[in-house]
Amino acid sequence: MSSAFHTRLAKIATEMETVLAQVLPEPAGPQKRVMEAMGYAALGGGKRLRPFLLIETARMMGYESPGVWQTAAALECVHVYSLIHDDLPCMDDDDLRRGRPTVHKAYDEALAVLAGDALLTLAFEILAQETVHPDAKIRLKLISDLAASSGTHGMIGGQVIDIYAGQNEQDEALITQLQALKTGALMHYAVIAGGRLAGASEGDLRNLGTFADALGLAFQIRDDILDVEGDSAAMGKRTGKDSGLGKATFVSIHGLAGAKTKAKELGITAKNALKPYGHKADILNASVDFVLNRQK
Amino acid sequence: MSSAFHTRLAKIATEMETVLAQVLPEPAGPQKRVMEAMGYAALGGGKRLRPFLLIETARMMGYESPGVWQTAAALECVHVYSLIHDDLPCMDDDDLRRGRPTVHKAYDEALAVLAGDALLTLAFEILAQETVHPDAKIRLKLISDLAASSGTHGMIGGQVIDIYAGQNEQDEALITQLQALKTGALMHYAVIAGGRLAGASEGDLRNLGTFADALGLAFQIRDDILDVEGDSAAMGKRTGKDSGLGKATFVSIHGLAGAKTKAKELGITAKNALKPYGHKADILNASVDFVLNRQK
Repeated sequence: MSSAFHTRLAKIATEMETVLAQVLPEPAGPQKRVMEAMGYAALGGGKRLRPFLLIETARMMGYESPGVWQTAAALECVHVYSLIHDDLPCMDDDDLRRGRPTVHKAYDEALAVLAGDALLTLAFEILAQETVHPDAKIRLKLISDLAASSGTHGMIGGQVIDIYAGQNEQDEALITQLQALKTGALMHYAVIAGGRLAGASEGDLRNLGTFADALGLAFQIRDDILDVEGDSAAMGKRTGKDSGLGKATFVSIHGLAGAKTKAKELGITAKNALKPYGHKADILNASVDFVLNRQK
Repeated sequence: MSSAFHTRLAKIATEMETVLAQVLPEPAGPQKRVMEAMGYAALGGGKRLRPFLLIETARMMGYESPGVWQTAAALECVHVYSLIHDDLPCMDDDDLRRGRPTVHKAYDEALAVLAGDALLTLAFEILAQETVHPDAKIRLKLISDLAASSGTHGMIGGQVIDIYAGQNEQDEALITQLQALKTGALMHYAVIAGGRLAGASEGDLRNLGTFADALGLAFQIRDDILDVEGDSAAMGKRTGKDSGLGKATFVSIHGLAGAKTKAKELGITAKNALKPYGHKADILNASVDFVLNRQK
């Protein structure tokens, strides 16, 4: 993994924070608490992996513009909204995220629901702006793709499967579908949106989709591996969450060694899809190594 | 109030049900419960006043097309999502809506949150479709207007004020702002969207906006009047909800007679704004009488 990669990842995360602060509503008026809650959730740091993938894909395809960053901000708003709602007591009931109280703990449940709703709404408001891309049809495609990726046939669908159908069923097809929807759909969107902004051809979009899907699944398998391997490691860290619940994971199905092999294979698939782009793909190729080797 | 009006209102409500059934996802796959919950909420009948205003405004401006109905369906998806989330235990905690269990009672809280999220997402997916209007810029305007009307400077903002700042403050400016955002913003959107689809001029859009804002406020004042007058009437009906909570309403500020006068004045303002359209405005003018005289 190149240090160029880590520099770029950190730089994008820092700049993303600035762009997000610009697109979020300034807390004002008698409704300002919901705007504060949106900022609390969205400006809390993080790797910003989805914006990174979007921006670096556009760059690989030769396109840079402030509109790329706005699209990435819209995508991150959807990601943050999903975390706020997933953390609610009626869903995963989590009190902490990245070491800070979750939104319903720092504020209250009503504000957590509303701040999530508002971030989702804001994402579409951002994408409709002319500054995102001069071509109105590309903006509309970014909007319909984002809605599809985050709706019942995308992220929300994955969350529903996770809650109702994913428990205790050691079914690889189902867990692959669950992950493809719950976390894969937005990573797929990140890469495809980067391509669309750059005016990528249908052939390029196919390559990018193959890359994104392999990367997204490898990301989830690594999550499952960390969930188990973390057990005997770093004390006090909350791991074994899914395995402890008896939930099906790639590790429970394939074993630890099998899951690692599968992740490696997916990494090769992801990199192969980027072969046509030669050295321009160096940063995205490094992101594959990053996903496969990450420790948290 | 003409019987032509009632016929038209009922006809639109019936046809709207068909259009909504078409745009909602077919329940299928391991995530089908959320699709069922969306249908349960969205296909439960109702006056469909917002779709009616949108469709009749477009018609008054000389425009009819299946895209008008799709836009109305997107707007209704946003309205229904807001009802599902408002009914949640952490918000208004209502068990019944239109005599049926609310979504979190018929399903559960997690599905109510997710079904609401999915309806909001679907609204933007619908509006991005080419069948809504051939002009991509009009579709983008419909999207950004809908996001603005339903976000922190629109409907969500009004809900936040209602929860946190609206209680026990007998402040007419605040309650007017609350209602302009919470219920007024989507009614404003309905009328303006009808105008935009029809390619209305800036001058026409100003007239339509004046009509919509006066109608929306009259609608809310009538709600407050019914909340009080209903007390001694129809037995078993849940009225006196807001007045019983000591919440500020137009009646608590102006008294019953004062509120009725104010509603009548707003009705005149609404009708005056439609004078330039002569008899073409008959149905929308009748909707003003309907709002002022409704008994539920």
